[in-house]
Amino acid sequence: MSFNTFGRVFRFTTWGESHGPALGAVVDGCPPGLALSEADIQPFLDKRRPGQSRFTTQRQEPDQVRILSGVFEGRTTGTPISLMIENVDQRSKDYSEVAAAYRPGHADYAYDQKYGFRDYRGGGRSSARETAARVAAGAVARLAIPEVKIRAWVEAIGGDAIDPANFDADEIDRNPFFCPDAAAAKRWETLVDDARKAGSSLGAVIACEAIGVPPGWGAPLYAKLDSELAAACMSINAVKGVEIGDGFAAATLSGEQNADAMRPGPDGVHFLANHAGGIAGGISTGQPVLVRVAFKPTSSILTPVETITREGEATEIRTKGRHDPCVGIRGAPVVEAMVALVLADQKLLHRAQCG
Amino acid sequence: MSFNTFGRVFRFTTWGESHGPALGAVVDGCPPGLALSEADIQPFLDKRRPGQSRFTTQRQEPDQVRILSGVFEGRTTGTPISLMIENVDQRSKDYSEVAAAYRPGHADYAYDQKYGFRDYRGGGRSSARETAARVAAGAVARLAIPEVKIRAWVEAIGGDAIDPANFDADEIDRNPFFCPDAAAAKRWETLVDDARKAGSSLGAVIACEAIGVPPGWGAPLYAKLDSELAAACMSINAVKGVEIGDGFAAATLSGEQNADAMRPGPDGVHFLANHAGGIAGGISTGQPVLVRVAFKPTSSILTPVETITREGEATEIRTKGRHDPCVGIRGAPVVEAMVALVLADQKLLHRAQCG
Amino acid sequence: MSFNTFGRVFRFTTWGESHGPALGAVVDGCPPGLALSEADIQPFLDKRRPGQSRFTTQRQEPDQVRILSGVFEGRTTGTPISLMIENVDQRSKDYSEVAAAYRPGHADYAYDQKYGFRDYRGGGRSSARETAARVAAGAVARLAIPEVKIRAWVEAIGGDAIDPANFDADEIDRNPFFCPDAAAAKRWETLVDDARKAGSSLGAVIACEAIGVPPGWGAPLYAKLDSELAAACMSINAVKGVEIGDGFAAATLSGEQNADAMRPGPDGVHFLANHAGGIAGGISTGQPVLVRVAFKPTSSILTPVETITREGEATEIRTKGRHDPCVGIRGAPVVEAMVALVLADQKLLHRAQCG
Amino acid sequence: MSFNTFGRVFRFTTWGESHGPALGAVVDGCPPGLALSEADIQPFLDKRRPGQSRFTTQRQEPDQVRILSGVFEGRTTGTPISLMIENVDQRSKDYSEVAAAYRPGHADYAYDQKYGFRDYRGGGRSSARETAARVAAGAVARLAIPEVKIRAWVEAIGGDAIDPANFDADEIDRNPFFCPDAAAAKRWETLVDDARKAGSSLGAVIACEAIGVPPGWGAPLYAKLDSELAAACMSINAVKGVEIGDGFAAATLSGEQNADAMRPGPDGVHFLANHAGGIAGGISTGQPVLVRVAFKPTSSILTPVETITREGEATEIRTKGRHDPCVGIRGAPVVEAMVALVLADQKLLHRAQCG
Repeated sequence: MSFNTFGRVFRFTTWGESHGPALGAVVDGCPPGLALSEADIQPFLDKRRPGQSRFTTQRQEPDQVRILSGVFEGRTTGTPISLMIENVDQRSKDYSEVAAAYRPGHADYAYDQKYGFRDYRGGGRSSARETAARVAAGAVARLAIPEVKIRAWVEAIGGDAIDPANFDADEIDRNPFFCPDAAAAKRWETLVDDARKAGSSLGAVIACEAIGVPPGWGAPLYAKLDSELAAACMSINAVKGVEIGDGFAAATLSGEQNADAMRPGPDGVHFLANHAGGIAGGISTGQPVLVRVAFKPTSSILTPVETITREGEATEIRTKGRHDPCVGIRGAPVVEAMVALVLADQKLLHRAQCG
Repeated sequence: MSFNTFGRVFRFTTWGESHGPALGAVVDGCPPGLALSEADIQPFLDKRRPGQSRFTTQRQEPDQVRILSGVFEGRTTGTPISLMIENVDQRSKDYSEVAAAYRPGHADYAYDQKYGFRDYRGGGRSSARETAARVAAGAVARLAIPEVKIRAWVEAIGGDAIDPANFDADEIDRNPFFCPDAAAAKRWETLVDDARKAGSSLGAVIACEAIGVPPGWGAPLYAKLDSELAAACMSINAVKGVEIGDGFAAATLSGEQNADAMRPGPDGVHFLANHAGGIAGGISTGQPVLVRVAFKPTSSILTPVETITREGEATEIRTKGRHDPCVGIRGAPVVEAMVALVLADQKLLHRAQCG
Repeated sequence: MSFNTFGRVFRFTTWGESHGPALGAVVDGCPPGLALSEADIQPFLDKRRPGQSRFTTQRQEPDQVRILSGVFEGRTTGTPISLMIENVDQRSKDYSEVAAAYRPGHADYAYDQKYGFRDYRGGGRSSARETAARVAAGAVARLAIPEVKIRAWVEAIGGDAIDPANFDADEIDRNPFFCPDAAAAKRWETLVDDARKAGSSLGAVIACEAIGVPPGWGAPLYAKLDSELAAACMSINAVKGVEIGDGFAAATLSGEQNADAMRPGPDGVHFLANHAGGIAGGISTGQPVLVRVAFKPTSSILTPVETITREGEATEIRTKGRHDPCVGIRGAPVVEAMVALVLADQKLLHRAQCG
Repeated sequence: MSFNTFGRVFRFTTWGESHGPALGAVVDGCPPGLALSEADIQPFLDKRRPGQSRFTTQRQEPDQVRILSGVFEGRTTGTPISLMIENVDQRSKDYSEVAAAYRPGHADYAYDQKYGFRDYRGGGRSSARETAARVAAGAVARLAIPEVKIRAWVEAIGGDAIDPANFDADEIDRNPFFCPDAAAAKRWETLVDDARKAGSSLGAVIACEAIGVPPGWGAPLYAKLDSELAAACMSINAVKGVEIGDGFAAATLSGEQNADAMRPGPDGVHFLANHAGGIAGGISTGQPVLVRVAFKPTSSILTPVETITREGEATEIRTKGRHDPCVGIRGAPVVEAMVALVLADQKLLHRAQCG
């Protein structure tokens, strides 16, 4: 099956391929009366936009969003919001090689096995270009949760992690890596440049924090807040792991070490720690919600890799096209968008049941 | 909201609290004509059943399942299968302390914030006892995917991991830890015993492998196979992280290291590696599907932890009740069940669209 | 497929067959804190219960409901409410004839064609006995919409309609036909008795009114209030038609005749008519919501009807078992339940989006 | 809430307002490999297109559809199919009257009550113009069910019904009323013309038949084929009633009269009647599926009707704009589309569970 809709009551549906005429999202269930124009969406698309530094793909896409419905006199009407982004730089290249053989690590083989057929131009629907539509939808979701501040950053590239002691939130937007540690950003310039020049690629870890989520959001048991965040993040291209709070590190702790003790605080409760990442029993606790996401290295590399043709013959393939040497970098705004979309949905779900 | 149904076309709904009269699951959308009796379900419940060794909670529950509908003359009819497990050992203890104060790490505070009210007996709906219903449903799901063999094991307890060189699948059922490494199992006896005696607790990592998944299962983009697995596993009590294939380790690799090269093979394709964990672009590749899940240490510990009362006053709490010193151990059959449930759903979804 | 769950956020799932050990419903998404006990549900089951007069089936079922989860200290907790009704009078009769041949008008042939197999005891899952579970769930839904008063009545049996001039709401509960017209009730005694004695059956029309629905409920476009009501009512056994407001009669009117003119009123607006049945554009207007439902005559009749065997041979069948001579009569509490379930869901959906 | 998606596995989402830049549909879950181009969709849009005769609104819309995604080299890829229709003739008229006061029978009051706000230009989202998107989606659905032939016709206008004896399927496309009875079509010319000239309007009844539906489609209990058809048709603008087979007439029959007797036939079974409209127990029987739909008269009339302003003051309104004197006429292609969409979904659902 194909399930291109996400969400329970605040929902979005995306459509479009890497090399089709356009791509887009339909946001449904958005509360009415929110001020919304293209200017609320464009900045988030611009953060994700390719071709802005030598560390990302050189495909040039303005990623200009148009709102086609759901807004009247500058406010959301409560009806579906249709967002469209035209593809501009679908460079006419020769796809015969990709059409003929499967790129390892890409969806090529799996799509052919599933559908018997695939749009091989730039990966078609499986291209990370689709995430532009998510980012647009996420910008709308943010408006539905003004009480929450969401920000993501890159925590590690190719195994080289930031130093938590150097964390400076203001630094995130000052370098092309969404890196909160200026020293690490400096190192990553060389690291990513070397990979790029070698036609190689690197993995990355993205962290995302949502501050201001009130206690009580989450729909136990099978739409728990953490469960929905895991689904949302794992659905992003190239993601192979998701953690909430301490994640895998929590598995090495004792119960005493992992306890988030509570004290009375000015706003009711004061937590002494946040190993849980702001979620207990699938419901937000009021602490910052913390998600960490692992991106594998871009599968497109210049080194030839053994593969097979559509006919099952042995061959080799090297991916010459434009691509991100580290797809995780541009993953940061995408993770932010998915977190916003989950939180908007959970806010509305909570309101539905608990008034 | 409350969303106690999981799945798209092969769906299940669970109900029941830790200390209510019973708990159960309704499995809907199961293919007709499958041979099914209680005997197909009971062995999986027995694997998860508490009180079987000193390493798990001493609550004694026979966990006898009854099939109340959906089966006629020993075969599934295609209509809802209602499964019920009666609670037997709801020891009448004094819950006044748990009722009055929030146990850190538990859902107590979050449930009260969400619902304004909670069933405090043994955690009520947030108790891991609910997973018995999932295991029962999972046993039915297995029958819908006879081509797939699923097995989970404990990979690490309290940070002490198995040695992959010692991996012996037959060992998994020979020790009370679902441990495939006899030497590690030996070490864990002491480790878990010490924690138990100290009233402390330990985290764990569970790995689960599904062999025989044909290529093509997965519903891109927002019901991708990996996305559904992440949601399914993250919804299990105490889980804080999910990885597919190499997971977070993939983020430290280069594209060359992470490539799963392909060669022609006797069954069409032969993969030279499985960093991807059997999933590309959200669709199965035909390789073993590999999931890894992090369980935090049981939050119930004897050491007093600072907390607050329902009225917001400072207090301390220590959890004296019966509990698992390492809740992750009994998580192994639960992860298996969730993987089976996701795969059954994806098999049917694939058949729906692709015939 | 099998889809035994109804609703978007206030949802219920039913299970069980006519001659299985029990049947039940799981109500999910119910707001927390509502006072609920079996005593809130039983009266509605009693209204639908068989064997109460000679005008309904003589099967004796106490239809005692048990609440197995979701309620603590007399209040709903916000978690799934499991309701179970045991089957008691599964008379052990000879089903060989029904097993061998298809009863025309029943689901026998269609179920066999779909599932390749069916539980032929009393119709199995396709039996109207399932509606007991809906009535139980509906009783819970009523608690979530205390502002709404729902009542259904029988408007016609076998083409003999009530006289609107005789409408007396208090009369509905005074006769075994849920008939608001004492004179019609008198006539129906003879009518239904004659049909019963002849082993024949009669159709009926049920009307249902919901008073107190505030303006604004309804989820355009594809979960419109009228659309959901149509789905809910058409899913009831033996139903062949659904109307909102004037229904088919509206198709014979001119725009002037059909206009529901508005004037300022004490509560904001005063409508001069209600052709629309309280719904415009899929959204409630604040007027009474009016639904009308057509039940076909019970398919079980004593007159032999031509049919075929499972093997495709010609034969005849006459249905000797206990059955309702007019299944529509007991449909009244079922329609009420479905209307309550739709309204509870729409109330929560409205709150989700519009706060 | 807003729920602009319909379907379970073959799903579509529509967006757009009467006077926005465009409207469209995203079709998700369509099987891969189907030949599809704009030419497969346009003829159905042309049947519904306004301005083709004096009997429909004079708004001139070319309703040219563009496929923006989901098709590669002329075949569906299994990924979302985005369809867009630009609005061209959004005549710049003065909406101040509609903005200020509620048109009785329209969604104006209900939308304002729900959302606190509405796009008043031509009814915004509540305009029947939205059905163009459904018709486009329906054209795609037809390709997924090539075994089924669907055709709708107008059975009555303003209470003047066709004579079944005159039924001629070929006549349907020969007159501007989708009328299968040439004599009735002749009468309707005068009838509709008179209404149009008087600024009045008329209701209509549409019948729709689907031939070739194999036995076994339908998802009991709450996604029964008839239940889904009822929801689908009741969601169409101006619809107030839905019948399956004999519908309300069945409520006046005896069990003997209503029985669809069966005999062995060349293809397995031969039914002697089709009172059931091809559906039993919510599942198709293999007979033609028959749906009948009641459209109320267009609410826009020239005669002034009492109403209130947004501020609650008494006023009168007469609707001067372009409108259909009988909105039911153009409802025929919309009913066909909805039936196709339901059947495609049910076909896939059946395949999912029953292989």
